[in-house]
Amino acid sequence: MQLYDATLSGNAYKVRLLAALAGIDLELVPVDLAAGESRTEAFLALNPRGQIPVLVDGETVVWDSQAILVHLARTRAAGWLPEDTPGLVGVMQWLAVAENEILYGLARARAVRVFGRPWDLAQSQELGRAGLEVMDRHLGRRRWLATERPSIADVACYPYVALAPEGEVPLAGYDNVRRWIGDLQALPGYIGMPGIEPVTEVA
Amino acid sequence: MQLYDATLSGNAYKVRLLAALAGIDLELVPVDLAAGESRTEAFLALNPRGQIPVLVDGETVVWDSQAILVHLARTRAAGWLPEDTPGLVGVMQWLAVAENEILYGLARARAVRVFGRPWDLAQSQELGRAGLEVMDRHLGRRRWLATERPSIADVACYPYVALAPEGEVPLAGYDNVRRWIGDLQALPGYIGMPGIEPVTEVA
Repeated sequence: MQLYDATLSGNAYKVRLLAALAGIDLELVPVDLAAGESRTEAFLALNPRGQIPVLVDGETVVWDSQAILVHLARTRAAGWLPEDTPGLVGVMQWLAVAENEILYGLARARAVRVFGRPWDLAQSQELGRAGLEVMDRHLGRRRWLATERPSIADVACYPYVALAPEGEVPLAGYDNVRRWIGDLQALPGYIGMPGIEPVTEVA
Repeated sequence: MQLYDATLSGNAYKVRLLAALAGIDLELVPVDLAAGESRTEAFLALNPRGQIPVLVDGETVVWDSQAILVHLARTRAAGWLPEDTPGLVGVMQWLAVAENEILYGLARARAVRVFGRPWDLAQSQELGRAGLEVMDRHLGRRRWLATERPSIADVACYPYVALAPEGEVPLAGYDNVRRWIGDLQALPGYIGMPGIEPVTEVA
């Protein structure tokens, strides 16, 4: 199983993280985004959106980080995606937060600061903080986002939340979010990525 | 079953549309967004994100339009969300397009033009057109986005694609997308919303 990957992509890291936590072997295929390798004809045949991550699992090609998490949970990581309707719907709610406040807020703010992308920093930070506030209140009442155990909702939300300080959104004051980051970092098999600090050092 | 709703919200319309297509009765509860009714304590107790739509189904409260689509498909609209893994993963991919290129592209461009929101119009239009190109190529090879019959992926993508001209993103040239819009409008039970024209009049 190959993962088309980039080390600094939080979206690709979501997949690497679930694989590490669930004990799934991945063969990483690095894609040089700056060199345009995600826009070649060969790559667009895998993913018409021209983005990493892409998972190739035998004859099956899956693009989009969250769809890949669902594919892995359904095929090799039982327990990370509930089958019952309330559990599935709860996961979907937090996947939506991951795609909205977190991706277009926290991840965009980071992309402005780290990669020089042309988006509005203040608007992105404001949207990101709105997401952190909702998460922090929710995590004051429960250990994990969607279910009684960690799920792909936690994996999907984690990367760009933990990377928020790179976009100049400090995590100080979001005490429940910081507790949750620590709980995730303590899971057996956990791996990090560049830019994510141990929670004891998160400011 | 109550849907907290706003007539001009494409996200709320997603839910109204699935309900109409699947023959589900909804009691609509109008929320006056301009008057701040989505930011009251009572409303935030339903949805901490302060957004419509919210579905109240007995004891169950579901926020987020896509999570609501999953809830309805699992409880009352069998056939609109596949149970098998490839089908579910295919739906997840297009839900991701609905939350990315479509929501932060086409819907943001419309929100700038129709509601005077402060986002960058050109950036939003560019992201939206990237999504339309991917959809148009895909729909040149298949009738519906994710499965052999219409699914919640089609319902999730449809509103802000059909509303794209309100954000000054014309649909002329996206012939497969226009064919798909017509197929959706021809489904039994279909309902529209203000701003969506019959496909014969879409420019």
